[in-house]
Amino acid sequence: MAKKAYKELRPPERLLLGAGPSNIDPRVRKALTSPIVEHLDPYFMEVMDDTVELLRYAFKTKNRITLPISGTGSAGMESAICNLVEKGDDVIVCINGFFGGRMKEMVQRCGGNAIEVKSEWGKIIRKEEVEKALADSNAEVVAIVHAETSTGVLQPLKEISKLVHQYNALLLVDTVTSLGGCELNVDEYGIDLCYSASQKCLSCPPGLAPITANEKAMDRIRNREAKVQSWYLDLSTIEEYWVENNHAYHHTAPILLVYALRESLRLLYEEGLEERWRRHKKSCSALIKGLEAMGVKMHAQEGYRCPALTAIKVPEKIEDQNVRGTLREEFGITVSGGLGELKGKIWRIGLMGINSNRRSVILVLEALEQALKKEGYPLKPGSGVAAANKVLS
Amino acid sequence: MAKKAYKELRPPERLLLGAGPSNIDPRVRKALTSPIVEHLDPYFMEVMDDTVELLRYAFKTKNRITLPISGTGSAGMESAICNLVEKGDDVIVCINGFFGGRMKEMVQRCGGNAIEVKSEWGKIIRKEEVEKALADSNAEVVAIVHAETSTGVLQPLKEISKLVHQYNALLLVDTVTSLGGCELNVDEYGIDLCYSASQKCLSCPPGLAPITANEKAMDRIRNREAKVQSWYLDLSTIEEYWVENNHAYHHTAPILLVYALRESLRLLYEEGLEERWRRHKKSCSALIKGLEAMGVKMHAQEGYRCPALTAIKVPEKIEDQNVRGTLREEFGITVSGGLGELKGKIWRIGLMGINSNRRSVILVLEALEQALKKEGYPLKPGSGVAAANKVLS
Repeated sequence: MAKKAYKELRPPERLLLGAGPSNIDPRVRKALTSPIVEHLDPYFMEVMDDTVELLRYAFKTKNRITLPISGTGSAGMESAICNLVEKGDDVIVCINGFFGGRMKEMVQRCGGNAIEVKSEWGKIIRKEEVEKALADSNAEVVAIVHAETSTGVLQPLKEISKLVHQYNALLLVDTVTSLGGCELNVDEYGIDLCYSASQKCLSCPPGLAPITANEKAMDRIRNREAKVQSWYLDLSTIEEYWVENNHAYHHTAPILLVYALRESLRLLYEEGLEERWRRHKKSCSALIKGLEAMGVKMHAQEGYRCPALTAIKVPEKIEDQNVRGTLREEFGITVSGGLGELKGKIWRIGLMGINSNRRSVILVLEALEQALKKEGYPLKPGSGVAAANKVLS
Repeated sequence: MAKKAYKELRPPERLLLGAGPSNIDPRVRKALTSPIVEHLDPYFMEVMDDTVELLRYAFKTKNRITLPISGTGSAGMESAICNLVEKGDDVIVCINGFFGGRMKEMVQRCGGNAIEVKSEWGKIIRKEEVEKALADSNAEVVAIVHAETSTGVLQPLKEISKLVHQYNALLLVDTVTSLGGCELNVDEYGIDLCYSASQKCLSCPPGLAPITANEKAMDRIRNREAKVQSWYLDLSTIEEYWVENNHAYHHTAPILLVYALRESLRLLYEEGLEERWRRHKKSCSALIKGLEAMGVKMHAQEGYRCPALTAIKVPEKIEDQNVRGTLREEFGITVSGGLGELKGKIWRIGLMGINSNRRSVILVLEALEQALKKEGYPLKPGSGVAAANKVLS
């Protein structure tokens, strides 16, 4: 029997303007081709030390425990939760989207008692609701999403953080879509533990989950009654490999991805965090202006829209899949659909990392115009791009 | 204050002849630079389907559930264990090295009761001991390491597998260092669930853990009383993303690493599994002949030496670190030291994947000769290489 032939890889060139991954910066791509050394090689230890320092810069934190978990964003979420939560713990979980729901699921799998603070998918979590939950429970941990990737909402954190600490609880935050693209200041906000992912605003390949924990969070972890249920994600042992001077063996880090992360953070450091945030804000407002000129409605609550990710309502009588198919097949542009209860109802347009620029805004507006027209949606030609250009120029 | 400068990456070129990672095949490196597409892109789904098929080829299995876990080998271990083990379960864990010990630790973190079957580090696990443990317990799972990366022992599995099934238990096997380099036939051996890693005999970067489970194992997982404690590693939901036709979203796979894995498996498929095993055996016997001619003693029990990894005793009065330092700094060759109780006592020389060849054997023997001489170890010049050449030519 003849052997089946497996062809050489030839992925299409796509402009990734969905909810992540974003495209990879060429310098990051180059870093990936650097010679591999062993996970305990003295050179790799220098790479690790630089990565830790640069991650502290990105998170705006002095936290000693700041490192990338060897897994994707969801591994970061699981690490955060299984380190802070023990069996029987009350944990307040704020749910205003798909990823809040995932946090709840993980809290329960750790044996925690999840107390939900809910909000409509597309609205922020109200601090009054968090306070009520704190007053009504013994929760010592409050989990919340900074940038809800499923809705495009950017959650204000400062006041909630104050409340959480007034009740002597710890604040655990999902910054998967915000790190490196949206204003985030871990120490100033009083975030006790938060995690992110490499493939969004850092323009790095997926496979690593940066995480940072302050001493209060680490105290809780080091004084747990039972060991963290996950050996792989236990911060109190991973720290010995990543942060201690002797870099004791824990597991084999995804070495090339760490090269890539270091390079993406070096790019962020060169651009400057504040400049990066400004760039994301500017591209996003241009995009929104363009979309609104086309008559498209925003999904996320005004005033709380995430600069890295814009969620819009699929116009009535328009078929979600057709439009995204046209964007992908005719324009080479990826845009994401909705998750969970928002499936078929929204599109999510990401302008993350290197993709947050004038070219992306113009391309996606033009392509969306064409794709919508094809489906019979009425609009004035060029209206989107014209409106966006007023912000961009 | 001037900003600290972070230099461009410039890792040294090393020949990685340690316990892994191995060097990366140039075709795999090329695959890593392919354009990234989204984790739900139709093109990526084709890549996933090919990867699953090729992994079945590598594991010699028809198991439907055969896929890469999005983490390193230890994530594969944790996935295997936390899927099969529930709180209160008796689990027989065979320990004849560092990684058997890690399995025990993970069984306990899952709430399992680990029943140890021990053997000296460097010897195989005896089937009689496994039978005794099966007879004396209610264990429904037996965990064992195929190729103990810490000792270089290759464990025979067929007879143990028969015993395990006579007692209606399931066999869980660590094949981290054997997959793609040492004879392994998952279906014929009757392995119910096993996991591996991308960075050893597959010559792919670290960051993925191939795993395969048969229907008996999946039945146990699907009929658990409690959910798998790890959301990230739960095979019954990961399968919906990796193996079902609709590839439902679970998490963002490390896309570029999947490209790399597919390419490394394509290389394996082109070479042929049996041919690959022969190559590893031949390089390994040449290495052993050379080492023995130099008067170096083997650590692993004769007759059970892993063709991918040779453990040797550090000669008396020789300083572990000095020799490995010379190999690394003067010859650009990485060789691993011992782990746990073998720290400082053995060296581990890996000939894995593309590194299993004549050139590596000659280089490491020659370099080791020079490094040992520098430490005052007496040997006849060229004796190692001459002896190895007899096998190689």
